[in-house]
Amino acid sequence: MDRFKVTPEALENFVIEAMRRYGIYEDDARLSAKILVTTDTWGVHTHGTRQLRPLLKNFPMGRLDANAKAEVVREGVAWAHMDGHDALPFVTAHRAMALAIQKAKAAGIGYVSVNNTSHFGAAGYYATMAAEQHMIGMAMCNADPNMVVPGARGKVLGTNPIAYAIPKRDGKPVFFDIATSAAAANKVIRAKLLGQSIPEGWLVNADGEPTTDPSGFPETGALMPMANHKGYGFALLVEVLAGVMTGAKLTEEQPSWVPNVPGNPPGKTNQGQMFIAIDAGAILSPALFDERMDWLADYIHDAPKANGSDRIYLPGEIEWEKREAALKNGIDLPSDVVDYLKGLAEDVGIATLPFEPVTE
Amino acid sequence: MDRFKVTPEALENFVIEAMRRYGIYEDDARLSAKILVTTDTWGVHTHGTRQLRPLLKNFPMGRLDANAKAEVVREGVAWAHMDGHDALPFVTAHRAMALAIQKAKAAGIGYVSVNNTSHFGAAGYYATMAAEQHMIGMAMCNADPNMVVPGARGKVLGTNPIAYAIPKRDGKPVFFDIATSAAAANKVIRAKLLGQSIPEGWLVNADGEPTTDPSGFPETGALMPMANHKGYGFALLVEVLAGVMTGAKLTEEQPSWVPNVPGNPPGKTNQGQMFIAIDAGAILSPALFDERMDWLADYIHDAPKANGSDRIYLPGEIEWEKREAALKNGIDLPSDVVDYLKGLAEDVGIATLPFEPVTE
Repeated sequence: MDRFKVTPEALENFVIEAMRRYGIYEDDARLSAKILVTTDTWGVHTHGTRQLRPLLKNFPMGRLDANAKAEVVREGVAWAHMDGHDALPFVTAHRAMALAIQKAKAAGIGYVSVNNTSHFGAAGYYATMAAEQHMIGMAMCNADPNMVVPGARGKVLGTNPIAYAIPKRDGKPVFFDIATSAAAANKVIRAKLLGQSIPEGWLVNADGEPTTDPSGFPETGALMPMANHKGYGFALLVEVLAGVMTGAKLTEEQPSWVPNVPGNPPGKTNQGQMFIAIDAGAILSPALFDERMDWLADYIHDAPKANGSDRIYLPGEIEWEKREAALKNGIDLPSDVVDYLKGLAEDVGIATLPFEPVTE
Repeated sequence: MDRFKVTPEALENFVIEAMRRYGIYEDDARLSAKILVTTDTWGVHTHGTRQLRPLLKNFPMGRLDANAKAEVVREGVAWAHMDGHDALPFVTAHRAMALAIQKAKAAGIGYVSVNNTSHFGAAGYYATMAAEQHMIGMAMCNADPNMVVPGARGKVLGTNPIAYAIPKRDGKPVFFDIATSAAAANKVIRAKLLGQSIPEGWLVNADGEPTTDPSGFPETGALMPMANHKGYGFALLVEVLAGVMTGAKLTEEQPSWVPNVPGNPPGKTNQGQMFIAIDAGAILSPALFDERMDWLADYIHDAPKANGSDRIYLPGEIEWEKREAALKNGIDLPSDVVDYLKGLAEDVGIATLPFEPVTE
């Protein structure tokens, strides 16, 4: 398979130009490019620039509005709620976490929720914003259903992601960003395309029975929650914090952020999101927190290794190493991302692509 | 196997009397009895009165102090930290969640952390306290290691539980209380005693390799995290929120709350705990939250059922139904709980046991 290389700068400039052609303001495009390309540098390509093409299609359809700005509509000492007004979701989410951090600086903990918004890319990005301010950050959102719950058949809840980040003295926060399903939908679809079977515990068939055959998905069947009832419980908590509390559309009433998905209900997505910041040094002191966090990191790194294992990773550590390599040597783009970017270039009439095939 | 029945009142009175004989104040004993017996009425017998005997043994050893009271040592607008001073942990945890609720009433969200404390029973009990005040409650604690992490062998992190509760108009909160391991240690030990194998994904052997043979545990091997790296991530978040931030003992430095466990480091447990409350009706309104929560509950209940399933449960629903039955017909005590209670009666010289065998 062909490999493609791109520098982060070239990819950001491409993203900015493509967004500009959709009528998005320069500053908003710059911020979005930084968020999406950072995600690609982490190697989290499922949630990086790959998602830009379908997201931008929402603007000419009127499901997103390049001129809108999210607005704080209600707030208290340690919280605020923003109406996203269908503005560019990356910018809205960035503002929401910045405000949660500000609330936590004053109150020790703070949350900012958003409704009337859409897909914000990788939840983990916003969590790391808090870690840069020596806070523990969390970000989550509800989503249209893709996941069964115990006892049901078919898609009941979204794969409602949860992300967190924890500050570390070396500037590389512990960070964690997961779907509450056992596996991501695109892993199941990739196995289907390759004609492979999937591990037990990932999928139920049209009758709600566990299956290792991905061929019916996504038309029928549904993803299984991680660890079954445990993943169900976490997905439900997210549905409540990001959805029930905020006025967002819930479960089957929420159209996918991807336009024209078969079965999508009409209207705007109205996704709900929740951002939490906790001042890590409030109880002890920032220095003591750092010292204890370093102790814990060393303890985990130094634990006896399993047979065949030569290293134990903290959550996010692989991503920071990939980012370091990407900043030095460029980003390795998988071919599916390249296809999305080529499509986007066609959509907006950009002739020069920022990446080039690498001959092995 | 013999079955045993007890009324909640008789079991509470037994608990109060046993605690009194350990020098615990009447009010503290009453509150603890309510917490432990409520847990038994839910059918969560692993965390109910079964745990009282080993916990009380901490008092004469000086690892807990019947005369101590937890103290708020630092606080902000939306948070507080309590030094547990090795007081009775149920009472400390109850006070901590009550204070978190009070903070959240003023600020919309609040947390109270505790260190220098010990085992508080079922984390879920404290979460439900928040739900009774129309708040979303969360409770978590760190613990001595019992669980491997990806790439390691042996016990690295505790099975650090996470619980939440969400208010519902019918007075039966959604509630969820899990260990971040794939399975509870006592399930593995029960299989070992019965000479059975265990499912894949529960346990690693002494080499850190997944095994279905429980015979080496708990002396060697370790529980696996739920959904492997996902459970690792959640356990680590709990270790940070309840442990690193609070000044509690971390991982292998924390002695088990059960006295005289082989390999227990000397000294007091110094467990860390974290209680969070979020005002559910702050953003919209309490009535609108309730209405939307009922919609979500109905939507889940009414989802199409899997083959062989006639009902879909919300988290906690089974527990509330068991409680209703227990309040009406008495609690069915498993024989292992009965053995613990008999042992406790012997320890303190109570001649009359509150339960009786049921002849089928």
